Amino acid sequence: MTEKKAEASLEHLRRVFTVPEGEDSALAAIDREISRNLAGFLREHIVSEEKAPSKLERDFMESALPEDPCFVSEQAKFLLEKVVAQSVHTASPAFIGHMTSAIPYFMLPLAKIMFALNQNTVKIETSKVFTPMESQVIGILHRLIYGRAANFDDKFYRRWIQNRDHALGVFCSGGTVANLTALWVARNRLLAPRGDFAGISEDGIMAGMRAWGYDELVVMVSKRGHYSLKKSCDVLGLGKRNLIMVDTINHRIDLDDLRRKISEQKARRAGIVALVGVAGTTETGHVDPLEGMAAIAAEHKIHFHVDGAWGAPTLFSDRYRGLLKGIESADSVTIDAHKQLYVPVGAGMALFKDPAALDSVEHSAQYIIRKGSRDLGKHTLEGSRPGMAMLVHSGLHVLGRKGYEMLIDLGIGKAGQFAKMIQSSSDFELTTEPELNLLTYRHVPLYAREALKRAGAAAAARINDALSDLTGEIQKAQRAKGKTFVSRTRFELPQHHNHPCTVFRVVLANPLTTRQVLGEILDEQRETAERLLSGPVGHKLRAACAAVN
Amino acid sequence: MTEKKAEASLEHLRRVFTVPEGEDSALAAIDREISRNLAGFLREHIVSEEKAPSKLERDFMESALPEDPCFVSEQAKFLLEKVVAQSVHTASPAFIGHMTSAIPYFMLPLAKIMFALNQNTVKIETSKVFTPMESQVIGILHRLIYGRAANFDDKFYRRWIQNRDHALGVFCSGGTVANLTALWVARNRLLAPRGDFAGISEDGIMAGMRAWGYDELVVMVSKRGHYSLKKSCDVLGLGKRNLIMVDTINHRIDLDDLRRKISEQKARRAGIVALVGVAGTTETGHVDPLEGMAAIAAEHKIHFHVDGAWGAPTLFSDRYRGLLKGIESADSVTIDAHKQLYVPVGAGMALFKDPAALDSVEHSAQYIIRKGSRDLGKHTLEGSRPGMAMLVHSGLHVLGRKGYEMLIDLGIGKAGQFAKMIQSSSDFELTTEPELNLLTYRHVPLYAREALKRAGAAAAARINDALSDLTGEIQKAQRAKGKTFVSRTRFELPQHHNHPCTVFRVVLANPLTTRQVLGEILDEQRETAERLLSGPVGHKLRAACAAVN
Repeated sequence: MTEKKAEASLEHLRRVFTVPEGEDSALAAIDREISRNLAGFLREHIVSEEKAPSKLERDFMESALPEDPCFVSEQAKFLLEKVVAQSVHTASPAFIGHMTSAIPYFMLPLAKIMFALNQNTVKIETSKVFTPMESQVIGILHRLIYGRAANFDDKFYRRWIQNRDHALGVFCSGGTVANLTALWVARNRLLAPRGDFAGISEDGIMAGMRAWGYDELVVMVSKRGHYSLKKSCDVLGLGKRNLIMVDTINHRIDLDDLRRKISEQKARRAGIVALVGVAGTTETGHVDPLEGMAAIAAEHKIHFHVDGAWGAPTLFSDRYRGLLKGIESADSVTIDAHKQLYVPVGAGMALFKDPAALDSVEHSAQYIIRKGSRDLGKHTLEGSRPGMAMLVHSGLHVLGRKGYEMLIDLGIGKAGQFAKMIQSSSDFELTTEPELNLLTYRHVPLYAREALKRAGAAAAARINDALSDLTGEIQKAQRAKGKTFVSRTRFELPQHHNHPCTVFRVVLANPLTTRQVLGEILDEQRETAERLLSGPVGHKLRAACAAVN
Repeated sequence: MTEKKAEASLEHLRRVFTVPEGEDSALAAIDREISRNLAGFLREHIVSEEKAPSKLERDFMESALPEDPCFVSEQAKFLLEKVVAQSVHTASPAFIGHMTSAIPYFMLPLAKIMFALNQNTVKIETSKVFTPMESQVIGILHRLIYGRAANFDDKFYRRWIQNRDHALGVFCSGGTVANLTALWVARNRLLAPRGDFAGISEDGIMAGMRAWGYDELVVMVSKRGHYSLKKSCDVLGLGKRNLIMVDTINHRIDLDDLRRKISEQKARRAGIVALVGVAGTTETGHVDPLEGMAAIAAEHKIHFHVDGAWGAPTLFSDRYRGLLKGIESADSVTIDAHKQLYVPVGAGMALFKDPAALDSVEHSAQYIIRKGSRDLGKHTLEGSRPGMAMLVHSGLHVLGRKGYEMLIDLGIGKAGQFAKMIQSSSDFELTTEPELNLLTYRHVPLYAREALKRAGAAAAARINDALSDLTGEIQKAQRAKGKTFVSRTRFELPQHHNHPCTVFRVVLANPLTTRQVLGEILDEQRETAERLLSGPVGHKLRAACAAVN
């Protein structure tokens, strides 16, 4: 490169790396509009009508790297027309299908500050105060969970909250990595050093199983456990078939079956890495009997992990806290900040009761996370990480316990109301009662409901299969229309001979979702059902019902 | 809760979830200032002088959950005074110590848009167009890496870029998860189904090693490999001691030692999960002889992974691309977007040459990432993930290949200049020549340099240890002063009898770092050294040098 050309390049880059005057009007305008009126911006720019995936893909087929730079305003225009317009209105009060919801307005400028500072929390040299801030956030949530257990008092937290050698938990991108981290710790603690064996972290699984005399390693959870547990069993080398699925009673783990399966596993010389309780199942929002599980885990000296990715914030509520009784006995707990702490996606945490637990996965290197340092990267599965803890810190302070309590109480209350609306209608069936703020239901025309009452198992199965088709089609049609959104899932319904059925699933976490919105969602589903029932789905359902008579 | 109280709560939450009029002046003011003049904002608000960690921690000791809400303006004030002020000025042109650098100004409003949309890329139902956009970003970078290999042409990319069943790569939070994902895939492909064995993903490592007749599983990399590989070997159940460290010649892998160690491992019936080449080592920025490694990997049918977290973007440069020759033969490549793609922390990718490679880690569930869906979560280690691909998409389009080429060329050019500045000074020693835009050096007073020339290995070791102390203290003093920042690391120096020495490490990625800034950094180090040399460090060094005469 000639000297002159290099100078010109540098000047160009200087402009790109520093804010230019008045040049970026398109992007700046979007920025300002979002700050001023986010809800309006989203309503105005997100097109609701769903495009077929193949159409969505059309603008993203080019694999050649763009050769020349383009103006920021060009890219802003593209993003507005092709990306913002075709994104999902997750903040809409009528989008109650998933766990990604609206976020408080102050999170957005905070997110910009976070990115402007661009700290990297892997080590204190690139994160400075973000290190103790993250530790504090972990400490506060640790205390939310364990603060009612004996000895988890001021003195305990003063000692551990900013400790250099141990940690009360780790921050990560979300619940999957949190669950994986908890099982990683549990696995490494089960296969601890013994004799010549230096521990699984150093010597690997094979050597560990030999040293401890295990033929298998398993993790146990109810059938409603999150899919990340299977993935974790794969990653950690246990194998997915070694995630032992325990039966459920009303979507909560069956403690008798659990005891039975523990005995079975012990008999085949399996090491039980962890017993996982779920506080708020992803599909139905149920909470396992955590106290009973804790007792069984203690009896058998098994690591007890609670997946509270969704439900742990229920502890904010004086009224509903009791639903999670027993969580304070867990060895580790997963909690997602991007769910019921209302922080943007991706922020999760794995908390550990014993401040020494994370020692089993400690790592160090020469240039960073040196031994004895305060570097958070010593204990995290991830390396470089953004300062998302700042957003959680702000949520905890701006909303306070009472603010989060309101959100929890409102959500659970609303789920109860919605359940009543469903039950009092003649053409909807509540398929799972809400325990937290989730429920499932389906549309069942009156004649199908009557037929189901009289049908034997085989005939009922055919009706339920037809209803599952109907539910799937209603959900897809509703999603395509794009004004409201509920999700769907599929599991065995005890009230229908344990037949696997597709059901609507709703998550009532957006405080702006009103009773009226819920009524409109049911109305839309009813109308869609009527239309669909005049087609092949209706034909199949009527035939299945007719066969009963 | 009474009806009236519930109404009041709802009203309060409505305010928190929608932008209030004129209430949040403090936060809005910060937001505006960042948009208008980011560099000025950071200069003005970040206090340079380093606080002792214990002082930093003082404001973050409280473990009790705040009970009552606070005003957003209160929290904004706290963040400005206690967090922004005490964060690291990663964007400063004088902070050349780590891989976290300045980012182009347009990334900030984009980041806010991303958070405002709050998409979750785990499944298309919560990410819609973000799904094909992410696939495109992966496709473009895949082509950057593999586009020069035979058959990786338009036709190939048209077929695979938006494929529903397979993927060219995965997006993740950063290089560590990318390396872990690549080794996870490699491990699962090595222990593929065979006879009764359903594959490691299903049956676990133990069964896999039995089925394939391996006594150990190992990964091989040069001594300069990133620490995330050790962590991955722990997580994946291989054990850290099964990360086989191959010797280096001038900080690049020694192919003869590699061949020797492969034979050794085969002789002990070890399955070789992967051979890892490094394209830009974290400590010195050297590139392994990738072509030679690829040939050896092919000969032994070993998965060849290239950790290009730092160096892969060198491919943008016509001038320097050749340094990475052979990368197009890799089975998988890690690239970090939050490094040389200049996106905020955390965005990384693992790319796979074979579109079927990721099948070995595919997961599905009932309510999301259903089989046959377009859901990106099918292949990712993480679950919920933000739409960071939007920022990468924008970087690729706004800067274009030519923009990134300028950044690469400037950085490598500047490293060459800085190396000359160091070499032409009488009191600094260039400890590693830059190949990319990293180099290491140290301060060596003239008398120590003379003594080292005459010293035998033992005497030289003592002098080098004293110099290491000096280097460490200079680095800490410089960091504490907070105006400039270089990092330090420690490794064996071939030119000093392979004695492990502490050295300064610089990363020249910020285009705003000028020759003048580099001169000032050396001046500051020289002054600090003079001051320190009059103390105990100087005493130790002089004594070690005197012993030579």
